[in-house]
Amino acid sequence: MRAATIREGEIVIEEHPDPVAGLGEVLVRVRAAGLNGADMMQRRGLYPAPAGSPQDIPGMEFAGEVLELGPGANRFAAGERVMAIVGGGAQAELAVVHERQLMPIPDALDWPAAGGLPEVFTTAHDAVFVQAGLRPGEHLLVHGGAGGVGTAAIQLARAAGASVTATVRRPELREQVAALGARAISDENFAAEGPFDVILELVGAPNMVDDLQALATGGRICVIGVSAGAKTELNLLALMGKRARIHGSTLRARPLEEKALTARLVEREVLPLFETSPPALRVPIAETFPLAEAAAAYERFAAGGKLGKIVLEL
Amino acid sequence: MRAATIREGEIVIEEHPDPVAGLGEVLVRVRAAGLNGADMMQRRGLYPAPAGSPQDIPGMEFAGEVLELGPGANRFAAGERVMAIVGGGAQAELAVVHERQLMPIPDALDWPAAGGLPEVFTTAHDAVFVQAGLRPGEHLLVHGGAGGVGTAAIQLARAAGASVTATVRRPELREQVAALGARAISDENFAAEGPFDVILELVGAPNMVDDLQALATGGRICVIGVSAGAKTELNLLALMGKRARIHGSTLRARPLEEKALTARLVEREVLPLFETSPPALRVPIAETFPLAEAAAAYERFAAGGKLGKIVLEL
Repeated sequence: MRAATIREGEIVIEEHPDPVAGLGEVLVRVRAAGLNGADMMQRRGLYPAPAGSPQDIPGMEFAGEVLELGPGANRFAAGERVMAIVGGGAQAELAVVHERQLMPIPDALDWPAAGGLPEVFTTAHDAVFVQAGLRPGEHLLVHGGAGGVGTAAIQLARAAGASVTATVRRPELREQVAALGARAISDENFAAEGPFDVILELVGAPNMVDDLQALATGGRICVIGVSAGAKTELNLLALMGKRARIHGSTLRARPLEEKALTARLVEREVLPLFETSPPALRVPIAETFPLAEAAAAYERFAAGGKLGKIVLEL
Repeated sequence: MRAATIREGEIVIEEHPDPVAGLGEVLVRVRAAGLNGADMMQRRGLYPAPAGSPQDIPGMEFAGEVLELGPGANRFAAGERVMAIVGGGAQAELAVVHERQLMPIPDALDWPAAGGLPEVFTTAHDAVFVQAGLRPGEHLLVHGGAGGVGTAAIQLARAAGASVTATVRRPELREQVAALGARAISDENFAAEGPFDVILELVGAPNMVDDLQALATGGRICVIGVSAGAKTELNLLALMGKRARIHGSTLRARPLEEKALTARLVEREVLPLFETSPPALRVPIAETFPLAEAAAAYERFAAGGKLGKIVLEL
């Protein structure tokens, strides 16, 4: 099979041996695979794939068709449309994954949408609802509202009856973010727009002092990205006074059983919202690239300034 | 009525008008009232009582007999033994409190034990179980294991099937802490004794970096005291990698309905454990003082080096 491959910090297309579905696993013919910030870090050698995942083939999400079932696998049949988060190796013509990590693809979604759905919607749902417990009527602040996780979080929160404010650094993207249902504001002086019950933090250290100041009593900060720095000051007395909590979370390092649980929750609480009329959720796509142009796709992702996913088609 | 009274940083005994039970409130003849760290801060003007509580009469917990019922109050009858956390004013011969904050006193407890129970057992139960969600089989680290909240947390965690390590600064108190069911260790190098699923933090900033290092994956740090400092450094990437959370919490500032809920939880999950055979919980008492010697009681509390509560008898 052909696969995007990391070679000395560059993305090239190489032939690899076809993977084989082991016990409880499924071999998938990948049709679309979204890019994520973690791929950029992995390309630079900063975020190695977990043990058991291909180390040199990037990609943490895909959509495709079931090709073969490994021994004991029975959740899906050959030909069914499935998608999943994986530890790595998604940006390839073939991928294997345990069947409990797979999710069925709603009929309303085409391949690029399905290939760019799992990572950001699972991450946003887990952070905002499972970790931070956002409730109807609450006020969510999303930092980085134009990013993949940000656009997912905004839509999920709106569909659940919460109001959303989103910081968007680039003024030219604010209108598109507002169209998703958020009040889109500058990333400066956001604290004045609070109080917020939940803050989804993807930027990291520079925001944290203002985050805590802008938090409502009983508020929760969920940190799932530290693109602008990891070390911050924390005033414990302010945390106590607000009766607040700070969560840190990643999906990638979780064991299979936790990833499977997360997939079941997304099936139940997220996927139906893509099939309401009108759909409550959609997957914004900025641009798609054929596998042969994977390197260009990475450059496009790294350049930023987009709203929506960059997705490889295979 | 006579009451301990704060006058320019000193505790004196003064006459005050008898309080009157308002709507849904109960007038209690106080028999015992425990001292807490917050009283020490309030005496120094650093921790004013919340609005609606007496500002110059300290005391956040008491035990006594129901004397009179205000309009609409019907949970208890005159003469019943009751105890409660209050926002202030407990160190007085008479106190009024909303009936939903009152709890019945288990028969096994005498007045000093009941007067020293509410604050530390409610605080420990709320922090360790309600906030941090300690589970059977987990490993709890209690910082300040010889303190009032520490001794309560150790006993509660052991009764719930968790194992407990407790830091105890003074070597001479470690044997008494160990007798409560904890492994009692020095407060230096505690991180080497992890990993811990839950850390109860009463000391504050100086411990936080090591707390995070010593935390298990999925662990929780609950900060309810900052006696040694409030400003700390936080590594968000470490928090993410551990999928950890940091809670800050106080009881005092909560509204009546939350305090009432907390009291119902203590009635259900804590009080029965004082009446098992042998009792799973006890209230360690270091020393009792008559009201007239309240100033001496405060000095004894401030001197430290004790295990167990300092309680006024009235």
